[in-house]
Amino acid sequence: MSATQHLIDPALIAAENAKHAAHLASDYAHLGEQLARRGLDIDAVRAQVAAFGVAIPSWGVGTGGTRFARFPGPGEPRHVFDKIDDCGVIQQLTRATPTVSLHIPWDLCSDWRELREAAAARGLAFDAMNSNTFSDQPGQAHSYKFGSLSHTDAATRAQAVEHNLACIEIGQQLGSKALTVWVGDGSNFPGQQHFRRAFDRYLDSARQIYAALPGDWRMMLEHKICEPAFYSTVIQDWGSSLLAAQTLGPKAQCLVDLGHHAPNVNIELIVARLIAAGKLAGFHFNDSKYGDDDLDAGSVSPYRLFLVFNELVAAAHEGVAFDPAYMLDQSHNVTDPIESLMTSAVQVQRSYAQALLVDRAALDAAQDANDALTATHLLKAAFQTDVTPLLQRVRADAGAAIDPVGAYRASGWRQRMAAQRPASRAGGGGIV
Amino acid sequence: MSATQHLIDPALIAAENAKHAAHLASDYAHLGEQLARRGLDIDAVRAQVAAFGVAIPSWGVGTGGTRFARFPGPGEPRHVFDKIDDCGVIQQLTRATPTVSLHIPWDLCSDWRELREAAAARGLAFDAMNSNTFSDQPGQAHSYKFGSLSHTDAATRAQAVEHNLACIEIGQQLGSKALTVWVGDGSNFPGQQHFRRAFDRYLDSARQIYAALPGDWRMMLEHKICEPAFYSTVIQDWGSSLLAAQTLGPKAQCLVDLGHHAPNVNIELIVARLIAAGKLAGFHFNDSKYGDDDLDAGSVSPYRLFLVFNELVAAAHEGVAFDPAYMLDQSHNVTDPIESLMTSAVQVQRSYAQALLVDRAALDAAQDANDALTATHLLKAAFQTDVTPLLQRVRADAGAAIDPVGAYRASGWRQRMAAQRPASRAGGGGIV
Amino acid sequence: MSATQHLIDPALIAAENAKHAAHLASDYAHLGEQLARRGLDIDAVRAQVAAFGVAIPSWGVGTGGTRFARFPGPGEPRHVFDKIDDCGVIQQLTRATPTVSLHIPWDLCSDWRELREAAAARGLAFDAMNSNTFSDQPGQAHSYKFGSLSHTDAATRAQAVEHNLACIEIGQQLGSKALTVWVGDGSNFPGQQHFRRAFDRYLDSARQIYAALPGDWRMMLEHKICEPAFYSTVIQDWGSSLLAAQTLGPKAQCLVDLGHHAPNVNIELIVARLIAAGKLAGFHFNDSKYGDDDLDAGSVSPYRLFLVFNELVAAAHEGVAFDPAYMLDQSHNVTDPIESLMTSAVQVQRSYAQALLVDRAALDAAQDANDALTATHLLKAAFQTDVTPLLQRVRADAGAAIDPVGAYRASGWRQRMAAQRPASRAGGGGIV
Amino acid sequence: MSATQHLIDPALIAAENAKHAAHLASDYAHLGEQLARRGLDIDAVRAQVAAFGVAIPSWGVGTGGTRFARFPGPGEPRHVFDKIDDCGVIQQLTRATPTVSLHIPWDLCSDWRELREAAAARGLAFDAMNSNTFSDQPGQAHSYKFGSLSHTDAATRAQAVEHNLACIEIGQQLGSKALTVWVGDGSNFPGQQHFRRAFDRYLDSARQIYAALPGDWRMMLEHKICEPAFYSTVIQDWGSSLLAAQTLGPKAQCLVDLGHHAPNVNIELIVARLIAAGKLAGFHFNDSKYGDDDLDAGSVSPYRLFLVFNELVAAAHEGVAFDPAYMLDQSHNVTDPIESLMTSAVQVQRSYAQALLVDRAALDAAQDANDALTATHLLKAAFQTDVTPLLQRVRADAGAAIDPVGAYRASGWRQRMAAQRPASRAGGGGIV
Repeated sequence: MSATQHLIDPALIAAENAKHAAHLASDYAHLGEQLARRGLDIDAVRAQVAAFGVAIPSWGVGTGGTRFARFPGPGEPRHVFDKIDDCGVIQQLTRATPTVSLHIPWDLCSDWRELREAAAARGLAFDAMNSNTFSDQPGQAHSYKFGSLSHTDAATRAQAVEHNLACIEIGQQLGSKALTVWVGDGSNFPGQQHFRRAFDRYLDSARQIYAALPGDWRMMLEHKICEPAFYSTVIQDWGSSLLAAQTLGPKAQCLVDLGHHAPNVNIELIVARLIAAGKLAGFHFNDSKYGDDDLDAGSVSPYRLFLVFNELVAAAHEGVAFDPAYMLDQSHNVTDPIESLMTSAVQVQRSYAQALLVDRAALDAAQDANDALTATHLLKAAFQTDVTPLLQRVRADAGAAIDPVGAYRASGWRQRMAAQRPASRAGGGGIV
Repeated sequence: MSATQHLIDPALIAAENAKHAAHLASDYAHLGEQLARRGLDIDAVRAQVAAFGVAIPSWGVGTGGTRFARFPGPGEPRHVFDKIDDCGVIQQLTRATPTVSLHIPWDLCSDWRELREAAAARGLAFDAMNSNTFSDQPGQAHSYKFGSLSHTDAATRAQAVEHNLACIEIGQQLGSKALTVWVGDGSNFPGQQHFRRAFDRYLDSARQIYAALPGDWRMMLEHKICEPAFYSTVIQDWGSSLLAAQTLGPKAQCLVDLGHHAPNVNIELIVARLIAAGKLAGFHFNDSKYGDDDLDAGSVSPYRLFLVFNELVAAAHEGVAFDPAYMLDQSHNVTDPIESLMTSAVQVQRSYAQALLVDRAALDAAQDANDALTATHLLKAAFQTDVTPLLQRVRADAGAAIDPVGAYRASGWRQRMAAQRPASRAGGGGIV
Repeated sequence: MSATQHLIDPALIAAENAKHAAHLASDYAHLGEQLARRGLDIDAVRAQVAAFGVAIPSWGVGTGGTRFARFPGPGEPRHVFDKIDDCGVIQQLTRATPTVSLHIPWDLCSDWRELREAAAARGLAFDAMNSNTFSDQPGQAHSYKFGSLSHTDAATRAQAVEHNLACIEIGQQLGSKALTVWVGDGSNFPGQQHFRRAFDRYLDSARQIYAALPGDWRMMLEHKICEPAFYSTVIQDWGSSLLAAQTLGPKAQCLVDLGHHAPNVNIELIVARLIAAGKLAGFHFNDSKYGDDDLDAGSVSPYRLFLVFNELVAAAHEGVAFDPAYMLDQSHNVTDPIESLMTSAVQVQRSYAQALLVDRAALDAAQDANDALTATHLLKAAFQTDVTPLLQRVRADAGAAIDPVGAYRASGWRQRMAAQRPASRAGGGGIV
Repeated sequence: MSATQHLIDPALIAAENAKHAAHLASDYAHLGEQLARRGLDIDAVRAQVAAFGVAIPSWGVGTGGTRFARFPGPGEPRHVFDKIDDCGVIQQLTRATPTVSLHIPWDLCSDWRELREAAAARGLAFDAMNSNTFSDQPGQAHSYKFGSLSHTDAATRAQAVEHNLACIEIGQQLGSKALTVWVGDGSNFPGQQHFRRAFDRYLDSARQIYAALPGDWRMMLEHKICEPAFYSTVIQDWGSSLLAAQTLGPKAQCLVDLGHHAPNVNIELIVARLIAAGKLAGFHFNDSKYGDDDLDAGSVSPYRLFLVFNELVAAAHEGVAFDPAYMLDQSHNVTDPIESLMTSAVQVQRSYAQALLVDRAALDAAQDANDALTATHLLKAAFQTDVTPLLQRVRADAGAAIDPVGAYRASGWRQRMAAQRPASRAGGGGIV
């Protein structure tokens, strides 16, 4: 835990915060006055926001890329311990990201207890485990070129199942309570795959994983319309995900990644349907303009992100029993990953805070009266509210940075890491 | 039944067919030789195709339009009896459309027995009944402006349920065995509608309709991503349709309209999933380039139509128990509706015939071996086969026209109708 | 001009405004303080916003619909003078909509001078004229079923040209300075239209209209990807619009309707390209989730609307010479059209105001340094600023309503109109 | 030249062909009879098809991949000479691919004369050169992470220009006559890039390349809506490509890649517009279901490919002067690249052959009469014609294989290469 203090000097954070303190006090007071007029207690909202957290994907702290190229940044993490350091910085400066989600085999290490302790020392716990059966590892007996859990070959399926069981085991050592299963299985040509048989094979493999889930774990099924398969995928949409989750049992639920849908699809409506079906597992937050772009959450469509949270807050408000997992899942190709992740975590927090401001009683009344204009205005009123001072105050109260990116740049963390961490992953080449 | 002969003079058809007979014989013989090389008996395929039929939507024989305008054609049917005449012509010339699907209240008449007899005399029976709760009728107590089965007002919902029950009753008098339920319910603004409550109200209303279904009937739920509602719809995709059908019971199934999906969605994959779930009700065939364009089936994407039939034929081949309903659902804005419906019925038949040509044993082997190129080639080989002579022969055998559009034009039917039927529906105006 | 006062009692507006005055003063002061910290003078921004206006489409004050149905609202305008009254109310309550855009023949009247005076008395002038060659009028010699300016028949093209010339003439009497040309021309089937010849015919007709343009007029070409034609359109995108505008000459420019693009298209980028090409005519503002949904501007994608204005403000900031026309173009199917138009005008104004807040010098620096995170944060900082008090103050200063919808509802205008204006357009039926 | 014979033993091809000879003769005769009925001389069509060729992209003979993984196949080419061998096999077996398109620096070698001779010995010449400024090479002075031709930094732009000049120089040594310029330049965040300035910088760089073009060369500009940039790209669509080509001059034209458009876009219409504007450079053929999927040409949407060729054949038929370049551009992730390229070349050839069968006089008449049904039927009649025997005969006549994939598999080429060429590029890892 002393490690936490050592990532970035708390004195630096305090000094940075001091610059903003007076303005924050004034802005917070005025926002409080505005909310009070609407019958809202800003401190009560603040407490809810303070309790909110979103997980960091371990792979997110490295620079991403496309099939055309990867352009590495300086000081990239070389292994999972470096990644935990970067995640620790994010959590130190935002206090909005208390957990990390690992990806196996990318995060394999020789001592899980050591990792758990390193994380704890940085204020971090472990969220869902992610298995990887969409790429081959050196020395792997069977290739996933033609699929994994749904492969036509039983030995390949068994290998993929085995890998998922290994992920559960590692997760148990780390205190995780969930396994996220995303497969790249699908086809690139009409006829390549027998749709129903592939789905049955997937279910058969998934059943074996499900059977090995500890009693307090969840299995989160992630659907995706395309990529890496470009004609069909085995779990292509929430309908297939739902069918699979229903087949597997109550511990299986459906994970929603905001970039995995067909164009124009109403994602907040899918969220509502999954809540109603008792099958909403949680989210991979990111933004999307064209496909699975993995852009920073809310960077292109902030209102859509708000509308998703509007569904979540409404359900919670109405006492629906559900417990969605929140995780970022982005590809940082042109920014410092730490800056993007901090900004995105705050953006997600912002959407949650704004959704808390919706006047639900008035909304119910407008909906019942089919007063569409008033109803939509009530959402807009919440969304247009600048909750920045509320979010800043939550951070300041927790010892985090009022301006996380400003403090981070002031800290020189990236420059220090660039010196300490020689480049570990190749860039340039690409896979076209 | 003598009526059938009287629609178009059989002598004219025979004379037209005589022009094509020699070429048909030569082409059929050569196709038979080609299929024999592939181990296929052309006469066996012909028998299967001859047994295939697709329903005509009664509204399809009138000219369609858009919100901008409707440009009426000459001789449009004025009432359901005129429509039955037009459908009779289609069936006489193609023998591929033995049933008609009615739409209430558009097809209301004072004597259902008379209608049934008029249809029977033209060789027609009645397929699924279609209810209409997406537009208001003169004198209607409650408006559907803000929804029908999912309306916030109980009296409006009750009225919509009642209308569906009336449709069932009419259908029973006509020998129909299914009710298709499509609603325009949804919202145009974020917040306008409470997603989960609207869905629950829909389910509650649908349950009342389901309870009234005769024992040998099906209830076919039709989803649609948008239009007339442009932010959300209550049954927006096959996932919501499936949830609803599961809730209602075994007689409820999901209808697939080819134009009701998000861009890029793989429709043949949805068909496969619904077959696997035991929930495929059937189809509204049409084609789509941009949205619910209601273009003629296969006119833009003929291979997609083939791929849908490939799933159906594969499932039948494997002994899956299912019985999909086939119906055309198109908007004929710039063509003679009778010509479009005949052409589309033949196009659907063509896709079915081509799907019957797929070498399923070889396809299974290629799929098992992950030989994607061979697998897709097997589909293409079937699709590239010009089955025109086979379809022509099926028609000739049944006394229909080898060239339906040619015979229809030669018959002067449209000109006769233009003289007999004064314009009944206004054109021009549009609803913008 | 006294008429303006008489539409809604100014005393009612004043009384309504009084309720909000104290909060507005406090909020405005605090916003001023916040902007001052960023180096912005709120009063200077206010002056720019006060000078901004967006045109109302005359057809927008009636209830819209879809091909499935139109559900009329109470008190709909019966003719262009009623429409001018409704537009007068919108302008009285918002002072953001000083012009009206007419649609011929929908707005034909017997005395244009009387209309111009009626408008002036309500504080309204006339923006672009809109021709209509996408629907047939009673008694019209040639039908537009198969096109208008690009029709294969010369007489039909001549008729369409003639109609556009008539629109210019009317516009001259009303003080308009622009003609907007949108045609429904296109095709529903591959092969129906010869693409190059149809485009040439369009250009030939457009040249004749262009030749008749008064010297100080503009011809605004509006592209659209589909609807009413569903396979191809003659001016399908900005590329074709640009080609046409280049061919015609300097007075021809390209109009951007936010709902007329393919899915996922980056509209703000098109705006930038048209500015660079010197061919940006202006906008039809609305919002879109699935297609040409004609939803209220910014109701679904407020950030996109902001990003469009960001391009406009940037170009103006850099001294680019251009003068875009701003117009709303929405279909109000489930709301009171006056409420929607007021709300949308304010939303457009909001986007403009927010774009004025962008720190352009800092943005330039971030762009030059490829600091993507800072660059995007600068846009977000402007967008997240709640400029509501600024907009309210602009209205209050101009004698309009701080809360336009609240004042409108308090005024009882709709109820009064419902009593005065018997229903004039049929609802219900639909064009399927 | 003797090399050509040595790639695959001509005796093997002859033996394979012998198996199909009798059926081919019968099928060809019958097709000839069918075409004669339509007034077409099969031998004249055959001559046109025999003269048609499509270029192979050198990178296409290697296994492709996605950002998630690449799964190498056996016997992948290690360098450009291996690639030329594989291209030689494709040409030997299909005689439809007489040219190769190189990609620099991927295809750099030490002796261009040797390469040219090696190619010539295999019956191959060189088509357009492709530059690469979308990925960094080891030792490169300036990174393309934030753009190349449009980069904010002048030195980076100069480096990118220099690279293009080097490509031209290489191309001159190889007999190429065109440079294809595709850049990955764009942005991932709103605000990251100044749209107009970036476009201006692109134009400025492109002008320098254009200035260095030999007199008989073309510069082919390739647009793309997204990827690797996911918010905006510099040449995002044909409109921007056209603007750039107009700015540069007559030797600059627009290249159409079938997968680089927004969803639903009518590509054949764009082709028609570019022909009309005198700016159609040519094509990168592939197929696409979701985005830039780089699937095999015509594998998902064969009718679309036909409709593109319909535009080309129509323009040629009407005497429009143009000379489009044809190239395949696909990513072979799950098939043997040689098999995919041969199949795709034949598919492209098939579309061309079918387009030649369209009855253009009848189509003109139907278009003039607005007989949409007949017009579209004329296209379908051509598309439904199974031209397989015609394509087979063209190959047989040229000494290629009647069944290229069958002959290729029989030849054992892949197994031989697997033994000769140790794996050269890493698989597995992926760039997420």
